[in-house]
Amino acid sequence: MAARTPFPPDATLADAGEFGLISALVDLFPQGEQVLVGPGDDAAVLRIRNGHVVVSTDLLVEGRHFRRDWASAEDVGHRAAAQNLSDINAMGGRATSLTIGLAAPAELPVQWALDFARGFADECAQVGASVVGGDLTRSDQIVIAVTVLGGCTQAPVLRSGARPGDVLAICGRQGWSAGGLAVLGRGFRSPRVLVEAYRRPEPPYDAGRIAAEAGATAMIDVSDGLLADAGHVADDSGVAIDVHASAFDVPEPLHAVGAALGADPIQFMLSGGEDHALLATFASVDAVPAGWAVIGSVAAGSGVTVDGAPYEGPTGWTHF
Amino acid sequence: MAARTPFPPDATLADAGEFGLISALVDLFPQGEQVLVGPGDDAAVLRIRNGHVVVSTDLLVEGRHFRRDWASAEDVGHRAAAQNLSDINAMGGRATSLTIGLAAPAELPVQWALDFARGFADECAQVGASVVGGDLTRSDQIVIAVTVLGGCTQAPVLRSGARPGDVLAICGRQGWSAGGLAVLGRGFRSPRVLVEAYRRPEPPYDAGRIAAEAGATAMIDVSDGLLADAGHVADDSGVAIDVHASAFDVPEPLHAVGAALGADPIQFMLSGGEDHALLATFASVDAVPAGWAVIGSVAAGSGVTVDGAPYEGPTGWTHF
Repeated sequence: MAARTPFPPDATLADAGEFGLISALVDLFPQGEQVLVGPGDDAAVLRIRNGHVVVSTDLLVEGRHFRRDWASAEDVGHRAAAQNLSDINAMGGRATSLTIGLAAPAELPVQWALDFARGFADECAQVGASVVGGDLTRSDQIVIAVTVLGGCTQAPVLRSGARPGDVLAICGRQGWSAGGLAVLGRGFRSPRVLVEAYRRPEPPYDAGRIAAEAGATAMIDVSDGLLADAGHVADDSGVAIDVHASAFDVPEPLHAVGAALGADPIQFMLSGGEDHALLATFASVDAVPAGWAVIGSVAAGSGVTVDGAPYEGPTGWTHF
Repeated sequence: MAARTPFPPDATLADAGEFGLISALVDLFPQGEQVLVGPGDDAAVLRIRNGHVVVSTDLLVEGRHFRRDWASAEDVGHRAAAQNLSDINAMGGRATSLTIGLAAPAELPVQWALDFARGFADECAQVGASVVGGDLTRSDQIVIAVTVLGGCTQAPVLRSGARPGDVLAICGRQGWSAGGLAVLGRGFRSPRVLVEAYRRPEPPYDAGRIAAEAGATAMIDVSDGLLADAGHVADDSGVAIDVHASAFDVPEPLHAVGAALGADPIQFMLSGGEDHALLATFASVDAVPAGWAVIGSVAAGSGVTVDGAPYEGPTGWTHF
């Protein structure tokens, strides 16, 4: 369903003009009570509780992070918001406010920008966060830059706190987005549940805070790939992590895709990112909250192994 | 002078790899005492005083906001930081922390990215602000996304507070950057002082706080062009603004460029942006702080005039 706009259906960004488009975009972003000054001035002003702010930034580039023929503008909006909201989740916090920079070709349909903004706002509404500012400029390729601000009600959970003897646990879908991407890459559109998971990840937004309150020793969101992100925790904590792939409950749609593409479905779970599952370590199995699955263990040493052995397949995603 | 790096002189981003490059970049960014968690985790954590945060975001696109043959990487770093720091200045605040998103082609020399980062860090050091996080990804065209956070020691000064009877005043160089850009556009490299002003603007970073303390009723930084930005104040305040161009002290280098290019040098001052001068309104001439020049007046009505008449030339810059 398209957002209603004051522009003709085939209008481009160039037709709409910078200020007309900004005005229409701002109308799509409701402002929360923490917003003292919203979009439209040199800067936004936000009320901050707890004496600190948690901040993260991410870029999405067309052709690299999304394709307009594989996902709707609204889907891209959901994904762009989700990957940023998830970074605050991974600190054990809650996002409150975001800024969006949109660089786009003059020929881009206004409707794309408006639908993107609507999807973005809808995803933010899931956690009660507001879009408080942004920038709009012309470029050859769509580049979306998002910065997210939030807060924690307890000490933020870092990547560096895992200790030998801890257990590794995961919360949220893992490998679904990678499975959906593999499907789309072969020109298919099903299993639809995986394609939808790629288009609109469903990060477990409450899980970060709950894990922090339960005493998680380290936490990260899975965006580079499970093994790659487990590796970041291992490196920053100065420990070794063993992932127990044999403990994984491989969901049925991944079995189906594995069979169709001739791939071991466990690969999607080990190297996939972008579901924005949370990966955390806890001092013991007893400390792991409901909704989390124990999938590994922490020991003295360094690096990541799978079922006690080095992993030969791809571990994740790098940008260069 | 090039930053020292662990990479061969001709290394590209693809040669350096994402994590090696991030590590080298992070080394260039000293962390202030407000930074509780700096770069390297899912998010940064900042200590916030005064119970609020002022936040703004801006994009710079290669070929549109800068050209690599017209400005060094270090210059682009200075400009990218300056235009963001200036947004906090225009609220009457002081920037403390920034994030940078860099989307760039794989063939970009690592040295460019490092020199950019060094220039950025040097500009931030002028106000004591830290780069606390970022993102790095591949794109066809360089796109730089900056978000800046800061605080105010008094109520932020908005665009919407100008009242009939106020005076309009400016602080900082105005038209120099536009003059330098015009020179470069004709293939010249002098007057050097203007080209340098284009490459490295020198925003009056203390002037915003001083104006706020002096009771400025409205404030904006000149980034779209003096008349365009005066227009934003007029629109948001619901007033008319008359700019007294006859009161302008046209600096000698602008006279020289005007003569060489056959242009009225006042045009650079009226329509030029990107020096990041501050434009503010005050209740009376007596309230205008030292270092500011009175250049206009506020009346009931709407719109912007120049010496009492509509202005026929270009008023500024739009992106679409």
